[in-house]
Amino acid sequence: MSYAKQMLESYRASAIDANVLAAAIDALSDCAQACTANVDADLGDADVASMIKCLRLCLDCADVCTATTRVASRKTAYEEGFARPLIEVCAAICARCGDECERHAPMHPHCGVCEQACRRCEQACRDLLAEYSRLATARLT
Amino acid sequence: MSYAKQMLESYRASAIDANVLAAAIDALSDCAQACTANVDADLGDADVASMIKCLRLCLDCADVCTATTRVASRKTAYEEGFARPLIEVCAAICARCGDECERHAPMHPHCGVCEQACRRCEQACRDLLAEYSRLATARLT
Amino acid sequence: MSYAKQMLESYRASAIDANVLAAAIDALSDCAQACTANVDADLGDADVASMIKCLRLCLDCADVCTATTRVASRKTAYEEGFARPLIEVCAAICARCGDECERHAPMHPHCGVCEQACRRCEQACRDLLAEYSRLATARLT
Amino acid sequence: MSYAKQMLESYRASAIDANVLAAAIDALSDCAQACTANVDADLGDADVASMIKCLRLCLDCADVCTATTRVASRKTAYEEGFARPLIEVCAAICARCGDECERHAPMHPHCGVCEQACRRCEQACRDLLAEYSRLATARLT
Repeated sequence: MSYAKQMLESYRASAIDANVLAAAIDALSDCAQACTANVDADLGDADVASMIKCLRLCLDCADVCTATTRVASRKTAYEEGFARPLIEVCAAICARCGDECERHAPMHPHCGVCEQACRRCEQACRDLLAEYSRLATARLT
Repeated sequence: MSYAKQMLESYRASAIDANVLAAAIDALSDCAQACTANVDADLGDADVASMIKCLRLCLDCADVCTATTRVASRKTAYEEGFARPLIEVCAAICARCGDECERHAPMHPHCGVCEQACRRCEQACRDLLAEYSRLATARLT
Repeated sequence: MSYAKQMLESYRASAIDANVLAAAIDALSDCAQACTANVDADLGDADVASMIKCLRLCLDCADVCTATTRVASRKTAYEEGFARPLIEVCAAICARCGDECERHAPMHPHCGVCEQACRRCEQACRDLLAEYSRLATARLT
Repeated sequence: MSYAKQMLESYRASAIDANVLAAAIDALSDCAQACTANVDADLGDADVASMIKCLRLCLDCADVCTATTRVASRKTAYEEGFARPLIEVCAAICARCGDECERHAPMHPHCGVCEQACRRCEQACRDLLAEYSRLATARLT
């Protein structure tokens, strides 16, 4: 069991499904690291000049995933309502970064690994957004 | 002249007004630091139990401002289009954090300083969003 | 297999044992998240006034682990020689934060989880330092 | 007056000279931003393949300066004693990154701006270390 899951089980009495939230936190943290490592890998490639877009997107994706990991780990994330738009931004960046990495994956296996981390993160963000919607609906009925 | 402004003048040939962008980057960076310091100040207050909301909001605001400082410093911010929603999220968090700090400012001068940093950052984000809109309109005509 | 390990296997031809490096990166990333979540958990405790030292140490530990995760993910970490002192600082902070969390663990299970993340991270940092020493010795002989 | 200075004046009753500490915090925050922007500038250069070392060093320097800005903004920085080794690491990275940027400055003005931010940050870190030493001596006498 991940530390994120253990932490949630040790203290949070919240309406959010802890499995969904912990999966999102883990995927965000993994994606931040994969994008950071992929920047380093891109910089070691002989054709670095063709990887500029990939480099910039991975840098943005790493920074937004790092911040979103932290915000999602706090109670305000759900209570204050700004987790939703932040996670939507994060999912959009992961989707864009994943698309760019996919283009390079056939020649650069490290981009293939990064693409997978981005895709998984995008999906985990969308699952968390669906969970927020489920809770918002539940409160109205 | 700030380093952000000097950096922009040294290399970026972009349609964005460098003054508006540099002002946003500086305000974001300052706000991240002010919120981080305000968390430390809150933790030193005798009535820390009444500052919980302020603490959590300052933590979120610091993290989102740090990430937005970095993303706004890259060309992708404008080219890829996800700077706009990220800066909108950032402005919303600064507004919310500024409101909470304002409540505590009469008793806690450090919250008054943090409120000012949040208000200035919110305004600088809105100025940058207006600049993005101006450019988007210019491209259509 | 973690993304950190997959990334290392996909591109890095380095003298460092990829298992040791990947284990350190994963432990650093986990510790950053656990400390961030533990701050949020501490802020929800009724006796928050008695958790101030824990809060400040977890904030420091989260920031240093986040930076060290990123630096350790780059080739410069080993080549430039400043990974060693940074990882030493990180191990020291993890040890101090782990000690403080241990004090609160009997009353606060979330501190017990955070302590474990800190202990594992400290050990993974020490294993990586030992690997650096092994390589430095190997180059001399 | 910078927000860092205003924050320190609004709450911190500490033996550390607030001017020295605020100058270090401002220089660290500026250096983190300059290095982040310089990475983006390097990625736009026609000879990006010759800037790889500069890119990696700026990435490391940005991350370590971001973390050190945050740690230096907290009281633990002085009380716990691990600010000193962290700031020493930070000064060493700024020195190394400044040297690399200096090499490229004649051809790349943005590297010249980044070099200045690194030099100023290194000096501000060394001034803060001297202030710590002064205080340690004062306590012994």
